[in-house]
Amino acid sequence: MEFNKHLADIKSYEAGKPIELVVREFGIDPKDIVKLASNENPFGCSQKVQDAVSSIVKNMALYPDDSMLKLKNALAKKYDIETKNIIIGSGSDQVIEFLIHAKAVENATVLMNSVTFAMYEIYAKQVGAKIVRTASQEHNMDEFYELYKEHKPSVIFICTPNNPTGDAIDAQALKEFIAKIDDDTLVVIDGAYMEYAIGKDKSKKITPKEVLEGFNNTIYLGTFSKAYGLGGMRVGYGIASEPIIEALYKLRPPFNITTLSLEAASVALDDEAFVEMSIENNFKEMKRYEEFARTHSLKIIESYTNFVTLCLNEGQNSSLLADSLLKKGMIVRNLSGYGLNAIRVTIGTPSQNDRFFELTSQLL
Amino acid sequence: MEFNKHLADIKSYEAGKPIELVVREFGIDPKDIVKLASNENPFGCSQKVQDAVSSIVKNMALYPDDSMLKLKNALAKKYDIETKNIIIGSGSDQVIEFLIHAKAVENATVLMNSVTFAMYEIYAKQVGAKIVRTASQEHNMDEFYELYKEHKPSVIFICTPNNPTGDAIDAQALKEFIAKIDDDTLVVIDGAYMEYAIGKDKSKKITPKEVLEGFNNTIYLGTFSKAYGLGGMRVGYGIASEPIIEALYKLRPPFNITTLSLEAASVALDDEAFVEMSIENNFKEMKRYEEFARTHSLKIIESYTNFVTLCLNEGQNSSLLADSLLKKGMIVRNLSGYGLNAIRVTIGTPSQNDRFFELTSQLL
Repeated sequence: MEFNKHLADIKSYEAGKPIELVVREFGIDPKDIVKLASNENPFGCSQKVQDAVSSIVKNMALYPDDSMLKLKNALAKKYDIETKNIIIGSGSDQVIEFLIHAKAVENATVLMNSVTFAMYEIYAKQVGAKIVRTASQEHNMDEFYELYKEHKPSVIFICTPNNPTGDAIDAQALKEFIAKIDDDTLVVIDGAYMEYAIGKDKSKKITPKEVLEGFNNTIYLGTFSKAYGLGGMRVGYGIASEPIIEALYKLRPPFNITTLSLEAASVALDDEAFVEMSIENNFKEMKRYEEFARTHSLKIIESYTNFVTLCLNEGQNSSLLADSLLKKGMIVRNLSGYGLNAIRVTIGTPSQNDRFFELTSQLL
Repeated sequence: MEFNKHLADIKSYEAGKPIELVVREFGIDPKDIVKLASNENPFGCSQKVQDAVSSIVKNMALYPDDSMLKLKNALAKKYDIETKNIIIGSGSDQVIEFLIHAKAVENATVLMNSVTFAMYEIYAKQVGAKIVRTASQEHNMDEFYELYKEHKPSVIFICTPNNPTGDAIDAQALKEFIAKIDDDTLVVIDGAYMEYAIGKDKSKKITPKEVLEGFNNTIYLGTFSKAYGLGGMRVGYGIASEPIIEALYKLRPPFNITTLSLEAASVALDDEAFVEMSIENNFKEMKRYEEFARTHSLKIIESYTNFVTLCLNEGQNSSLLADSLLKKGMIVRNLSGYGLNAIRVTIGTPSQNDRFFELTSQLL
């Protein structure tokens, strides 16, 4: 059987190894495994969310409220915007899928940073679009603008803070960049880790409201998978002008969010104290990673997220290090697939981080 | 901003009205609302499933096991097949999305029944494919074959039992049809309601194992949304030869099933007694709907599912009837959008059905 020719070029996304897989492959007791690979919230999720979801498990038989009004109202309140400017996706991932299919066609150009979230490329390839990347490792808005003028891309992805490196763009520089982009290019600001960036440095803060008020051609993406601790529930969102939201809605399958996920995300927005506690721990513990890097003469990329990228030195090998850690039950992300001799480590609880420092010290 | 031209032609799927919406629109107390519109299991879901999900709510922060091994193993066991022949979707809906994007391209033809599941057309339009439909209201395999020869479609959808009419195809006739279809046409057997058909008449039974052993060009779709009572959790699956599964996998976003949904579906397969009880109630109560139709001189389509389609007479209007029922808190599906002067009613619990009979008797 012949398939759509674009499929030949698509590689699947390589997810962080789940705990179940490590248990199966290495026979390690689940309680001895520490996963610092997928930037999940190490404190889990809010107790209020757990209680709310437990109280409605009998509703699993019922299709979700496809208007998602409760969650949209909660988001509209959080960001001081209107519900008509919101689309909910199965992770912000799914919103990326919608916008690529809505805006990019065969041979259209999609512009993104040299090192950035892998799914941008995977979705772009599904429609046969051409990928153009910057040369700089960190987002360089001048370089983005030069490439924009040269290629007139359909879609520009800006991931701030950036995954998997952790750096963030100055908000003012980003807004000046978008102001120069024409109305027929869709600019995507992926703010999956924005809650952390705001917790560290207000000059990195971009709000959906600013995006809506300033730019008709821009969509802001957010997620419940990181600071809100709901990675397993698959809820993200896009916020943009109505014409963009309407176009994306045409590609949204009905019931794309589970009944329990809608409840979890809605209630999560009611417990900002949990998020604040998570962010506070994050930056306190990040200092320990910075200290660890200094002690071992590793370069650490200044991070505005819940992870750090540790760049290894010549003679050290990120694949070997990640493998050795894995065999001891410590799961981190090897970035060799991104062309970096580096590992990405989610900042865990104090005791998880202790374990990382202990094991890695033995292996470096 | 200009969007992909295929979007202009797409209408959104009209979902059954959720209880929340009726509460909002008509101010009816939720406990007085009966929803018989979305073919959910009126008994909810298995208590074992509820207990299992409640016990892991703390895991909502963790990304799902993207290999989905536990669920795939359970499905492989149920159907006596191998896990490599399975892909899991966010509802079988998402598998339909994958297969359209994998196999149909712009101007390709997609063949389907005159009246059938609305999402086939919506997904086909996303890629700019042409829709060809039979004239017959029930699946007529001779007519399908004539249209196949004329149009050489990329994809053929066979929904058995069919949604929203409830009729089912003789399994032998279906297998003879598929045997005549060339290897480059993808045949889709959508068995979303197959558990019910098997419960009523074994001559309608098609198994994934038969499909795998007999046909390289065919995919079998199943779901947890109906007999297993997990409509809110969004889990379905496709079973096919490896080349088909591999192609679909290239379009699967990572983590497309929530952590709680994977657990719910896996455990649901362990409680077949719940499914059997549901099916037994269904056909016992269906007899009451048949009796009701006779009493009121309505035509009822012979149903192999958990719903019945009641065809109204001249002078009766399905839109008016559905609206009047809605205002009394009884949600059913008006089929006027499918070109039928009919309503589709999910078979509920005995007391829900009593209420339907009572209200509808007053309105006919």
